[in-house]
Parts: sequence; C-alpha cells; structure tokens
Amino acid sequence: MKIAFKNDYSEGAHPSILERLVQTNPIQQAGYGFDEYTLAAKARIAALLDNPESQIYFVCGGTQTNLLVISHLLRPYESVIACDSGHIVDTEAGAIEATGHKIHLVPSINGKIQCEDIRKVVAHFGEPPHQVKPRLVYISNATELGSIYTLSELKAIYNTCHELGLLLFVDGARLAHALNAVGNDIHWVDLTRYTDAFYIGGTKNGALLGEAIVLNKKELQIGFDYYIKQKGALLAKGRLLGIQFLELFENDLLNQLARHANEQADRIRQKLIEKGVKFLSDSPTNQLFPILTNAQVSHLDERFEFYHWAVIDPDHTAIRLICSWATTTEEVDQLLNTIDECF
Amino acid sequence: MKIAFKNDYSEGAHPSILERLVQTNPIQQAGYGFDEYTLAAKARIAALLDNPESQIYFVCGGTQTNLLVISHLLRPYESVIACDSGHIVDTEAGAIEATGHKIHLVPSINGKIQCEDIRKVVAHFGEPPHQVKPRLVYISNATELGSIYTLSELKAIYNTCHELGLLLFVDGARLAHALNAVGNDIHWVDLTRYTDAFYIGGTKNGALLGEAIVLNKKELQIGFDYYIKQKGALLAKGRLLGIQFLELFENDLLNQLARHANEQADRIRQKLIEKGVKFLSDSPTNQLFPILTNAQVSHLDERFEFYHWAVIDPDHTAIRLICSWATTTEEVDQLLNTIDECF
Amino acid sequence: MKIAFKNDYSEGAHPSILERLVQTNPIQQAGYGFDEYTLAAKARIAALLDNPESQIYFVCGGTQTNLLVISHLLRPYESVIACDSGHIVDTEAGAIEATGHKIHLVPSINGKIQCEDIRKVVAHFGEPPHQVKPRLVYISNATELGSIYTLSELKAIYNTCHELGLLLFVDGARLAHALNAVGNDIHWVDLTRYTDAFYIGGTKNGALLGEAIVLNKKELQIGFDYYIKQKGALLAKGRLLGIQFLELFENDLLNQLARHANEQADRIRQKLIEKGVKFLSDSPTNQLFPILTNAQVSHLDERFEFYHWAVIDPDHTAIRLICSWATTTEEVDQLLNTIDECF
Amino acid sequence: MKIAFKNDYSEGAHPSILERLVQTNPIQQAGYGFDEYTLAAKARIAALLDNPESQIYFVCGGTQTNLLVISHLLRPYESVIACDSGHIVDTEAGAIEATGHKIHLVPSINGKIQCEDIRKVVAHFGEPPHQVKPRLVYISNATELGSIYTLSELKAIYNTCHELGLLLFVDGARLAHALNAVGNDIHWVDLTRYTDAFYIGGTKNGALLGEAIVLNKKELQIGFDYYIKQKGALLAKGRLLGIQFLELFENDLLNQLARHANEQADRIRQKLIEKGVKFLSDSPTNQLFPILTNAQVSHLDERFEFYHWAVIDPDHTAIRLICSWATTTEEVDQLLNTIDECF
Repeated sequence: MKIAFKNDYSEGAHPSILERLVQTNPIQQAGYGFDEYTLAAKARIAALLDNPESQIYFVCGGTQTNLLVISHLLRPYESVIACDSGHIVDTEAGAIEATGHKIHLVPSINGKIQCEDIRKVVAHFGEPPHQVKPRLVYISNATELGSIYTLSELKAIYNTCHELGLLLFVDGARLAHALNAVGNDIHWVDLTRYTDAFYIGGTKNGALLGEAIVLNKKELQIGFDYYIKQKGALLAKGRLLGIQFLELFENDLLNQLARHANEQADRIRQKLIEKGVKFLSDSPTNQLFPILTNAQVSHLDERFEFYHWAVIDPDHTAIRLICSWATTTEEVDQLLNTIDECF
Repeated sequence: MKIAFKNDYSEGAHPSILERLVQTNPIQQAGYGFDEYTLAAKARIAALLDNPESQIYFVCGGTQTNLLVISHLLRPYESVIACDSGHIVDTEAGAIEATGHKIHLVPSINGKIQCEDIRKVVAHFGEPPHQVKPRLVYISNATELGSIYTLSELKAIYNTCHELGLLLFVDGARLAHALNAVGNDIHWVDLTRYTDAFYIGGTKNGALLGEAIVLNKKELQIGFDYYIKQKGALLAKGRLLGIQFLELFENDLLNQLARHANEQADRIRQKLIEKGVKFLSDSPTNQLFPILTNAQVSHLDERFEFYHWAVIDPDHTAIRLICSWATTTEEVDQLLNTIDECF
Repeated sequence: MKIAFKNDYSEGAHPSILERLVQTNPIQQAGYGFDEYTLAAKARIAALLDNPESQIYFVCGGTQTNLLVISHLLRPYESVIACDSGHIVDTEAGAIEATGHKIHLVPSINGKIQCEDIRKVVAHFGEPPHQVKPRLVYISNATELGSIYTLSELKAIYNTCHELGLLLFVDGARLAHALNAVGNDIHWVDLTRYTDAFYIGGTKNGALLGEAIVLNKKELQIGFDYYIKQKGALLAKGRLLGIQFLELFENDLLNQLARHANEQADRIRQKLIEKGVKFLSDSPTNQLFPILTNAQVSHLDERFEFYHWAVIDPDHTAIRLICSWATTTEEVDQLLNTIDECF
Repeated sequence: MKIAFKNDYSEGAHPSILERLVQTNPIQQAGYGFDEYTLAAKARIAALLDNPESQIYFVCGGTQTNLLVISHLLRPYESVIACDSGHIVDTEAGAIEATGHKIHLVPSINGKIQCEDIRKVVAHFGEPPHQVKPRLVYISNATELGSIYTLSELKAIYNTCHELGLLLFVDGARLAHALNAVGNDIHWVDLTRYTDAFYIGGTKNGALLGEAIVLNKKELQIGFDYYIKQKGALLAKGRLLGIQFLELFENDLLNQLARHANEQADRIRQKLIEKGVKFLSDSPTNQLFPILTNAQVSHLDERFEFYHWAVIDPDHTAIRLICSWATTTEEVDQLLNTIDECF
C-alpha cells in the first residue's frame, strides 16, 4: 500500500471532530442549521471576523460553495474574472457556466491574478448589451498552486474591484493553510474588510465535509438562505456541519491542523531545495510542485501516490505533493529518504 | 426541554454508524466516491436489488436528490406529474422549477397518486409545441402522509407510465419505513422492475446524511456522474456516504431502524385509535396525523414538540407525530401517558 | 376555403403598416433599436403614458415578452401567481418554469384573478427557505377569456400586491382591445400607475410582429437591455419593430384596429344573445366563447374555422370565435347568416 | 448624412421581399409556421440540400439561433469549442453560457479554427466528472473576419469532430456570402453532409429578419420545436419568415444579393490592394479589414460610417468595411474616390 501525498482529503476527520460528533450525537436538536452547535459555531467565527455585517453559512463542499455564491451574487448577464489556474475554470465540471455565467480567463502568475489583467477585461467588455458585464473577481487563497496573497496584494485587488464596480470573492478551500503560512500577513479581519465574500474550507482541513461561507455585506445576503435550499445544499441535520466548525474554531484546532500540514510540507520543500530542485510555483503552504526528472518521478511512484501535474519537457515532470493535518512525521521521513535515493 | 416527535432528523446518527466512521477514519482512501467503502456499499445494495442494469449513486440530501434525478432525466421541455402533497411541490423552495421544469399537480388521495389523474394530465397536454410534454411521474413511498403504495398500485402506476411514455421516479426519503410497514408487499427487487429511478433515504433513517439513488436503466445513467459534480453534490470525502450506507446495509441495520420507528409509531396509533381519534391519512409507518381537539393539542404542546399540520375546523387540528430510529420506548411511554391525560 | 375566426393573427399586417415599411425601407439606420423610427415610437408611447420613469422596449412576441419580463423581475427563488386560465400557464411550453420560476395557480373567475386568492398564496408560502417566495402577480387584460378588468379591480390588485411586497405585471397581448371595449374605464396612464410592468400587443392588433414592453420603475429597468440581447430577442434591424409601433401609435391606428375587432365581435355577440345562447365568459372584446349544441357547432364547422374550446356536457361545446382588425363586415355577415341557419 | 459601410443590416429588406409581403398580406393562413409559404420555403430549401433527413426551422435572429441550436444539441455537462473570433464568444451577451454551457476558446487563424486545436481541447478535457465534456464545434462561414472555409477544410473539421465524438455546427449568418465568394468550393449539399447543423442567414442578406436553421440528423431534431416555442422564438405569424425565405430561394435571389455584396466589396479591395494596403484577414466576401494610417481613417470617417476594429500600432488602425445587398455602385464609387484622396 502506497503512502498518499495526493490530496488533503484521503482520510476521515480529525479525531477530536469525530469525538465531538459522538458526544453530541443523542441530543435532540432543531434541523436545517438551527441547532445550538451551528449557532455557536457561527458566533465563534463572527467574533473572530469582528464585522457585525458579516453573515456565515455552512454548506458541504467547494464546488457547491462556488456555484452558490457566484450565482447568488450575479445577475444573469454578469460574468466572472478568474485566472486560468482557478479551481472553477477546469475542475468543477462547468458548474459556474451551468448557472449561466461566463468566466473571463486571465493569466495566472504564480497562481495569482494581476490587477492589470482585471482592468483589461473590464476595458474590453464595454459594449452593452452585446457583451456580458464583468462583475465579480474570483481568486483562491491559498491558490491552486499553493502560493498565497499578501495583504497589500489583497487590498490592491479589492480596491481595483471596487473602483471598477466589481465584487471580490475568495475561494478559501485552503484558507487556513494560507493564513498560517510563513510570510502571510493577512488576518481574519482583513477578509471581512477586503473581500465581499469568502469561504473557510473545512473539507481540506480536517472536517468530514463542510465549508463556511461568509458574506460581508447586508445587501449581498438577501435571499441567500433560499439559494442554499433551492440548490439542494441545506442539510436536514445541519448540526453535522455546525459541530465540526465549532470544534475547528475552538482550541485553535483549525490553525493547528493547517500549521501541521504546512510544516510537514516545509520539511519536504527544504529537502528538495537542498537537492537543487526547482518548483513550478512559490508555495509556502501544504502543496508543493517540484520539477523532477522522469527517473526521479518513477522512483517516487513506487512507494508514494501523488499527481503528475505537468510535463515540463521530455525529461522533466512537475508533480504535486500535498501534506495534510493527517500526514505523519514518519510518512514524511519515508518520503525524504526516498528523495535522498533519487539524487 | 420538550421531547421532539417533530421529525426523524433531530438526533445525529445511529451509534454503530458513528463507530464505523471512527474505525475507518485513519485509513487513506481515494476521493470522490472511489474509496473501498463506497464500492462495497454499492455492491451490497446491488446484490439486494438483483438487477444488473441498476446503478447506485450516493448524495447528501433529499432535495438534492430530487433535483439531480429529475433534471437529469428530463429534456428542458418535459414536465413532472406529482400529487399535491408531494415533497417537491411546496417544501423544496422551487428546486424543480429552478432546474427548468413544470410540475403538474394532481389530487393526493391518502397521499397517493391515481393512474386516472396521470392519464388526464397526459390527455390535456397534447398540443406540442405550445404545451410542455409530461414525461415523469414523481411519487413518494412512504408518502408525505405516511401512507404506502401496495405492489399492485406500484405496478399499475408503472404500467400506466410506460404505456404513456412516462418515467416513474420514487422519492424514498422514508423508503425503508414503507418496505418495513405492516401491510407492505413491495420488495427491493420490485423497485428495480417497476420504477425507472428511486432513492433510499439515509438521512431520515439513522445516517448523518446520505441518500442512495438508483437508476434502473443504462440509457438513463449516461452522464449522471457529471450532473452530480456539476451541481455541487460530489463529496471529496465520498467515504462519508459509503461508510454509512455500508453500515446500514450490513446486519440488516436499515430495516431494523425503520421497523423500530414504525413500531413506536404503532404504539401511539393504537392508543389514539383506542381513544377514538380520527387520522388525516391511513399511515402504517412512522408518521401519524391524528386529528385532535385544540385543547388536546395544547396539552401535548406543553411537553412535546411536533408540527401543527392542518386546521381541520375551528375546534380541531391535525398534528404530525414522527417516531424515528432514535425514539425510545420511554419517550413514547411519556407521550402515551400524556395522551391519556387528554381524554 | 373556410373563413377563419380562429385567431387574430391569420393575416399579415394592416396595409398602412406595410406601406410605412416600404416607404422607409431604403433609408440607412442604426441597428439594434437605435434607429430613428424606434426612438420616435418610444417617444410617442411615452407621451401617452405620461410617466417620466417608464421605459419602453420592443420585442417580437408574447411568450418572449412574458419570459423576458418575468425572469428579469424575479430572483431565482421567487415565484409567480397567475390564474389558471393565464396564457403563461399551459400554452407557452413551460417558458416561465424554463427560466426557473414556479407559477402558483389560483382559480380564474371569468378569466380574472381575485385579490383574496393572491392573499391566500402569500399566506400559504410563508416558510423560508423551504418554500419559494411569491413575488409577482401575472394578469392579462383583456384576459384569455376576453373579459376585462375595471379600473377599480386593477387598483385593488395593485394595492394588494404592494401591500404584500408583490410586483404586478399585465400581459397586454390584447391590451388595445381591452382599453377600447365597451365598459372599459382604464386609461393608458393608469397602466403606469397601477402596474409595475405591462406590454402592449402588436402581433394580435395588426402588426407583423411586435410587443411593446413598459417597465414603470427605474430600479426594475437595470440590465433589462442585456436580458433582451442575451435571450436572443434583440433584432439587428430593430427598425422593423419601431416602424410598426410608430404607425400604430400615429393617427390612432392601434385604437381603431382594436375597436374594429371589438365591433365585429359585438355583432356576433348580439346575434347569439338574441338566440338565447350562453357564454363561457363575459367578454366585451374581440373573443367570444359561446356554448352551442354539438349540432350547431358542426354546422358552423362546415364553413368556418375556429377552436373547439371546452366540452361542456355530452351535447354542448364552448367554441372560441375571434374577430381581428382584418375581419370584414362581409365575413361576419356570413357567420351571422350561418348562425341563423343553426336555430 | 454619412454613407454607412458599418454593417449589412442598415436598410430594410430587398424590395422584392417587401413586395411579396404586400401581395400575400390579406390571405388567411395558419399560424406558428404552418402557413403555406413557410411550407413552400422549407420544401424549396430541402430540395436544394438534397438530404431527406435534414429538417428546416425558421427563427428571427443570429443570437437566437445560436443559443437555440447549441442548448438543444448539448446535455448540461457538455461544452462548445470555438475560435476566439467566434461571434458567440464576445458579442452575444453571454447567451451560450446563459444556457449553461462553457465555451473553450482556441486561437483564430484568419478567423478559422484548426483541427489541431480541437484535438488539444479534447485531449485536455479528459477527466470526467470533474471536467466538462467537449461536444460541439462552432464555426462561422463566412467567418467574423470575412474569410471562408474550403471544402477540404470543412471535411477535415467534420471528420475530426466525428472521430472525437463531437458535433459540428456552422453559423451561417453570412453563409450565402461565403458560398458565392470567389474561391469557394462548398456547395449546399456539402453542408448537409459535412455538418450536423447549420443556418442560413436572412437578416444580413436582404430579409427584414430571419435565419433558416438546418438540422441534418433525425436524432438531433427531437423536441426542437418545443425549444423554439419555450425560448420565445416561435412567431404567431410564422408567415413573415416563410414568405421572406420563399422569396430569397426563388429566382436565385439569395445568391444574387450575396454576390452583389461581395462584388462591391471586391471593388474596394482591389483599390486598397492597388494602394498597397495590408488587411487583417484574407477575406473574399463582403467584409474587409484594411489596416490604414490613423490619418487615412480620419479622412474616411468624415464621409462614411464604419467600425474601428483594432488598434494595430500607435499609427495604424484596422477598420471594418461591409458591403451589403443594398450597397450601390455609386456609394462605392464615392468611397473609392475618398480612398484615392487618402494616398
């Protein structure tokens, strides 16, 4: 059996989350997210965000979140700007277009969007009613290449958006990994000031499932509860999400899990740097994209599971290695030893 | 704290399901429903259904299931026939219409649809292209009023459907309760012979969440996996659903839980019959709709939670009482005692 | 060749409309509705409506209008209230549901909606987010049964709507026939005061095609031009619509044509009343729904085309007779003679 | 008043079309495209296409056609491949995405798609269910840059499509101009053999409005009539489209009008070539994209209307000049004289 560095959802949940589910299991609660755990979890997140306008909603997964938020925020003739590495672009089965919205692609620079490119799209699409109306910028933090936005980058994007009449939505499937990365200077409160909407990923950070959507402005919240129900995203046992987020946001668990994943990834990164390996992106988080020789990749393939990400040239391949809350020091040790064998 | 007879999703999961989640938790598995538990659960259900063509898919909830199946099976100009008590009609936030399809309402007789009424709709909508094309009949078993279809009723509806070029889809949010009810003569295999699609509810029968969709014909399965992903219904940790259904379908747990709920409801039913109470529907399953005086309802309200279902006349109200896998004999005892106090 | 009293779109256009098309034909104009005829037609209608907020948009047909306006005015979780004889209900191929919106049916009384029934729907759908949110009332004037609303009825409906947070949209496919009917007391200006949106039908009143949509409030107009384009309703040669409406609104043509149709229908009505015939509805406009014996219907069938509308009993059938701008006195004479033969 | 070379829909209709409308105007006909003119027009086009399977449908405009055909041919998870100059990409207000489908962009080479690029998209999107399923290739002939496909190019694309399980749809807004261009070797019958669907533009070739959609395979036609109605594209007076196409396809009018437009454009092309002007594309049809100095553009701007298409460098701009069926020899003479003044 190979050890998987393939993704951050290979295991179940962090044990303390399971334990909390077991503890609370027999207690009768209201359905549809009106249970006391959900209310407590929302209160806890709200306290952290420190923005009385922000509202929190729990749903099951990332694609579900993206399609709910984007289709809720847009009128039918409005469109999304995303960089070409964006998760909504190629790996969500056209979920955004299926809600009726065009995505304008701009180049990804180290996984990140550039203000310049946002401006270009808006400038190009200036002929109503023949062209769609760009209205929302979608970014991910951490990005799909493991990189992170700095606070000044986030502010610049937000300011650009608001100057141009655009909303900013941050896909935070791995938000905790970004906020806990070495070099990060974004705090929770910044996300309520410099975005219109974002979400905090649970699925990829130790929950069985669950994402916490945050809408930062009252006028953007109208009717969102209907959306969640109408698109089939409202759980009868909403407690399942509430309990997990309550646990994640108590005792700093969310941050601890993300830091653990980042630290294990860092051990691999240091080893690869030591070996002189180059990377596809500059990632301080739990995803690494080293460029290896095909022989090295084959050798790693024998003992580990991971994605072959991109063919670089006939002799080299970029792979993706992911550490998670569940990755053990021993598993990484084994990987490091095998890397040693490759050089 | 009042005891809830309000619905069958007031608690968490059956303890053995939680235990299974704990046991399997650290084992690394493939994502997106390719884990071994999901595969094993599907194999087990398939064995029960005994139809090599049937395919099984796990998703999270009932509204999600209904919208996925119905919008997958229909072309945009095709419509649904449902009786006016159908769950999709008034309590799913317009989820079916939101996928683009009209629902034709026919009268509910004891919660059930009549072949006669299906024929009337088809006869009325016979003017293409000005009218939609009726194409799918939606029924629930057990129904929203707790009643169940007999095998001969199911066959008659299926035969009517196929004579008229309609598909038959059975909402089985409480299917186990129906199949385990006193008087039921439908077997699992009948559901693969006399329906085109159906689902087996987990959420309302002891799972944290989860419904098992069954599509009985190869041509109806094409592309359904894309649908599940595109609508945001594919879990990264698909194991969460697979493990639960594996547990439910091992050691007869699914049936045991449903029987338990039905039996506790039966105790209440017998008591109410004894008192001469009339019911809104003839239900042999875990939902009861007794018609009580307002004074009696008020007295019950003091100690129990339940829905006031319908105003019958100025002095009488029909209420809904639900027992579940988690309802204890003691809780029902307390209810029976309180009923005694009412008469 | 039978004479058609089947509908009001059996012929081409009123000759003066065709003449205007011929006259203006070679003159180069801007596309997409920015031609001078369209601008002039809008100005003329605006003058009549006397509401500086109202905006006018020309599109091709009735179903197109209904789906554009309704889907533009509603958020995805909002629904429509219509009476069961409404044109959007059964004869537009599910166009409204195809845009994602449920239609709540209420009984048609003489083709008209009752304030009482609007209130009932709103009262019933009061459980967000499980139920859709009723948001728009759809009525037709003249109705699908030829009847008309009085000003006090219109005001009452509008006031009820606004009290309940609903929008009012009037389908005016035969609006000119209503406004020119004996007994009508609604003026053009009333339509801008007591509706949120309405349209003025051209297709059924002498145009080749064309409906003039009026949105009465600024906030309801935002983005509607995008909608028209995105749904394929924007004509490159927008002049085709503008020229026709310019002609219809000059020299009182619109009213003359409607009055002519009404008057010819009135001749038939008088004859039928004289014969003691009963009608399915009380219609002062160009549609009549007399209830005849099957033998009488057969006799008329030999020389005339019309719809058999409803089977009343084994011996009686309601038929629909329509007069239009193009119906000649001679054609009606022939019908009257044949009616005489029937009695 | 400037002379417009801005587009091919600045005037009304060719006079003989108007005349036919006048002649047939008073004759009563069935509605919704069952009039005798529509039937005759379809028969005439069918005869030309010589494919007993092909079915013809008339609708109003190009965007309407594109959205109807594409959304009809695709299942919700299927996508479109188009080159980045395609009309559906940027100038139809996101109409295709609004029906739920992603468009994959490939580079435009002289306005045309390359088989190589089709293969690349299909190779890239090979991971169901996380990625959409490419299913339809959209091309235009003549292209948006005036260029045309050769028969061997068309065959190669069609064969590539069918090898890869893709459908081929040709946007023929200016199809007559392509088929009548110098160098064209595609015949009408080729369009029924080497495409799955195409349309013949009327609006840009002398009609008031109207496009003739051709679906070449029986299985692709099922339910398309419902689509047309449901999306609001079915005219009550379908005769308006039928009469125009009947006239266009009698006496070779369609071809004559296209040839006239092409020939007038050719006169301009020859003059510009003579002057040593370069073009943005190689167009043998009625659209020209010469690259001029800004001074030359300004001089032309004084007397003529046309689009500034693209900034080439600080000193040069590509403009678009279009001739139509209505462009007179005298108008072109004036343009040629003014061009002479520019050099």
